[in-house]
Amino acid sequence: MSDRRLNINNINPHVRAAKYAVRGELATKAEQYRVRLANGDKSLPFDSVIFANIGNPQQLDQKPITFFRQVLSILEYPNLLENEEALKTSFGYKQDVIDRAKKLLKDVGNVGAYSQSHGAPAIRDSVAKFIERRDGFPSDKDQIYLSGGASSAVNTLLHVICEGPQTGVLVPIPQYPLYTATLAVLNAHCVPYHLEEEKAWGTDISTIRQSLEKAKAEGIDVRAIVVINPGNPTGASLSREDIKSVIDLAVEERMVILADEVYQTNVFIGEFTSFKKRLRELQQEFPGKYDNVELASMHSVSKGMVGECGHRGGYFELVGFDPEVSAQIYKFISIMLCPPVIGQCLVELMVNPPKEGDPSYELYQQEYNGIKEGLHKRALALYEAFKKMEGVECQEPQGAMYLFPTIKLPQKAVAAAAAENRPADEFYCLRLLDATGVCVVPGTGFGQKEGTLHFRTTFLAPGTDWVERITKFHAQFMDEFR
Amino acid sequence: MSDRRLNINNINPHVRAAKYAVRGELATKAEQYRVRLANGDKSLPFDSVIFANIGNPQQLDQKPITFFRQVLSILEYPNLLENEEALKTSFGYKQDVIDRAKKLLKDVGNVGAYSQSHGAPAIRDSVAKFIERRDGFPSDKDQIYLSGGASSAVNTLLHVICEGPQTGVLVPIPQYPLYTATLAVLNAHCVPYHLEEEKAWGTDISTIRQSLEKAKAEGIDVRAIVVINPGNPTGASLSREDIKSVIDLAVEERMVILADEVYQTNVFIGEFTSFKKRLRELQQEFPGKYDNVELASMHSVSKGMVGECGHRGGYFELVGFDPEVSAQIYKFISIMLCPPVIGQCLVELMVNPPKEGDPSYELYQQEYNGIKEGLHKRALALYEAFKKMEGVECQEPQGAMYLFPTIKLPQKAVAAAAAENRPADEFYCLRLLDATGVCVVPGTGFGQKEGTLHFRTTFLAPGTDWVERITKFHAQFMDEFR
Repeated sequence: MSDRRLNINNINPHVRAAKYAVRGELATKAEQYRVRLANGDKSLPFDSVIFANIGNPQQLDQKPITFFRQVLSILEYPNLLENEEALKTSFGYKQDVIDRAKKLLKDVGNVGAYSQSHGAPAIRDSVAKFIERRDGFPSDKDQIYLSGGASSAVNTLLHVICEGPQTGVLVPIPQYPLYTATLAVLNAHCVPYHLEEEKAWGTDISTIRQSLEKAKAEGIDVRAIVVINPGNPTGASLSREDIKSVIDLAVEERMVILADEVYQTNVFIGEFTSFKKRLRELQQEFPGKYDNVELASMHSVSKGMVGECGHRGGYFELVGFDPEVSAQIYKFISIMLCPPVIGQCLVELMVNPPKEGDPSYELYQQEYNGIKEGLHKRALALYEAFKKMEGVECQEPQGAMYLFPTIKLPQKAVAAAAAENRPADEFYCLRLLDATGVCVVPGTGFGQKEGTLHFRTTFLAPGTDWVERITKFHAQFMDEFR
Repeated sequence: MSDRRLNINNINPHVRAAKYAVRGELATKAEQYRVRLANGDKSLPFDSVIFANIGNPQQLDQKPITFFRQVLSILEYPNLLENEEALKTSFGYKQDVIDRAKKLLKDVGNVGAYSQSHGAPAIRDSVAKFIERRDGFPSDKDQIYLSGGASSAVNTLLHVICEGPQTGVLVPIPQYPLYTATLAVLNAHCVPYHLEEEKAWGTDISTIRQSLEKAKAEGIDVRAIVVINPGNPTGASLSREDIKSVIDLAVEERMVILADEVYQTNVFIGEFTSFKKRLRELQQEFPGKYDNVELASMHSVSKGMVGECGHRGGYFELVGFDPEVSAQIYKFISIMLCPPVIGQCLVELMVNPPKEGDPSYELYQQEYNGIKEGLHKRALALYEAFKKMEGVECQEPQGAMYLFPTIKLPQKAVAAAAAENRPADEFYCLRLLDATGVCVVPGTGFGQKEGTLHFRTTFLAPGTDWVERITKFHAQFMDEFR
């Protein structure tokens, strides 16, 4: 027993109950390997650690977009504007970089000052205009709340939504563990609904309805449904029909929709449709029926071709919320004062990049497309490798930054895992890390149907040699436990 | 009644219960006035709004420290390093700016990537070295957790500490409302203890003990005590003896100490002593007695002469925490991934500024001292003005960024406030804003002894004309209600 006032048994039990595997044991071990290699340790069977466990593009190959970072450099040190000529001739800044920096400085005053709690008004306005262009429907800056990445947005929304231990929120399984962890901290119910692996990880309304009915029978007040589109960890991209089904269910069952749309530009197949756009279409098509829908849609600078995770920028848009509830959201975020202002500026740059004809447009397009193509190429390389691996099946990559293959392990491997008191997928992933330096996250970290095993890997790491490491390890692993 | 699923009556009642006046009605009204003036409205009786309601230095006069911002500009756009000569000749960057930027880029990799959940190791190490220099006692980087400002640190610590509705935390009154708001959200008890206005807003142990005993008698499990030193909103700076008394009480009553030390460089009288230093001294002096003390100390880039609120940087250091509890803290912050990386770099710059002999030292010193002297000068000007105002008493400014004068209002004013269903100090502050454009926060926002009235004003706004606005308004107000 600890002799301290706080010990593992008397701290907040809801914090204790929260699980967040993306940065758990495997990630910690991978970091230790990285440090050993950096210190010249030659005893490991690999010469580099591949962090395929987390969607962190700039930790790996991805270069920041030049236009964005040039503007931010001026925002941090506005005295650079005292010699525009030198910026241009010595460093290649274009006129639109300088103009945008001036505009943002005018809008936010100074990136070292607190902004309004929900972000600088001019930036919220720029986000609203982006949404209008994207969806073809109006958007109001007063319904836009800038946030410190989408994580902080989810934290805010779930805090306000969850009334107490009877509240339930429908969460897709597999899911990004932010949702289950936050619901655990709030002592609310995660009501899981399984995505359909066979249908490219799409939603199935009858499955959702089953989960919902079961929860209601247990007295749980299910008041919201989370949809991650494109999916994390699945990479799936929802069809317009799937989106309509979710909205219909939300209307019928009076649920708030939380649409996590941070991967909206990471779409390889088809076209992204936002929940907001689909909702507005339905409202036009069926007057009255969809009037009361409450929707919150999240976006972020961390993903897409922007990949600026470290800057912690994002936003959410509220649709159809009661103004008294919005006021409570505003108060709640005010307690933490405001999201990082430089991250807010990055949101503005993301939603309003150089346009055709602007001096920085060509380079921007080249960088943007280069990143997008690189992601797709690596996704396909991984997919092809997985297809060839014994006992591994993988859906065709559609979007996001992840593949989530299913693995069938030999009975002996499952027994060896049980002997170590570990889930079999965790056992597999640990062995993979120890043998190859490739760090992925076991399916248990995201949830999966009972009896199935998966792992999630990003396709961000450069090159393809690490894919071969996985292939080789897998063959040896299967042989060892055959 | 609202026809929405979420309405003011069914959302999280603990969020609803939280109060945060710093950004409440008065702040909103002040912002509306600012917009009206900016749009050319000539109908107001003032020509500028003075935001004296919030410690937001760079929104007002304060210029960022050049060295800090030059380094950050390079971190945002490392290609600037491809032409060091131009940086020097065209923009006056010194060699130490370039060297520091290179060092930080090596340490964090890329400011667009997520760092470790508790911050980049090299930056935590630099913070530990700063604490060692400050206190003369060792500090360990593994006990340092970088955070998004001190607000996020407080949020994390209270989340882990509060076990449930029986948990109590001692909070000074008046206090910065972050504490009461966060405890409200967590449905834990704020156990208030009054500071002694007559003793320059110092702590009085018998007062604290009284509050504690009362709470214990009500079955509350008081497990932590918050101390804000230097004080917000009081501006008080605690003596070494006061600090020892708090530590003694914490030992006796087995309480965790939360030391909010974000104003540690804003000290006009005497010298700042950290709780960590005082604890280590006592541990040396009385072996054994203080071994089990659990202390968390917070610091921030938002205050001091740095004033970089918008960058959301800070840290907390844990002392004496059970490693299993620290592991839960680590997991909890991992859910939000990491604090803004550019803010982390700013923490490093704050704790490791240019040293004597470094090329940027002279300018740094000049800027730092200029800000410090400006703050003190304005604090004294306000103080002198308050001393002359009828019915106003104010403690001599000792530190932080605030004065918290007590005001005695005529009975008629109190009655007029009651007729509007407002606390009298709020009534006074609203009248002040409407008449002069000066926005301050009523004492009710921070808590005050029953029957007393106060307001908090920062002394950040440039010039002294706004002080005269207050003086003139006050005389008229007193006349009106005499």
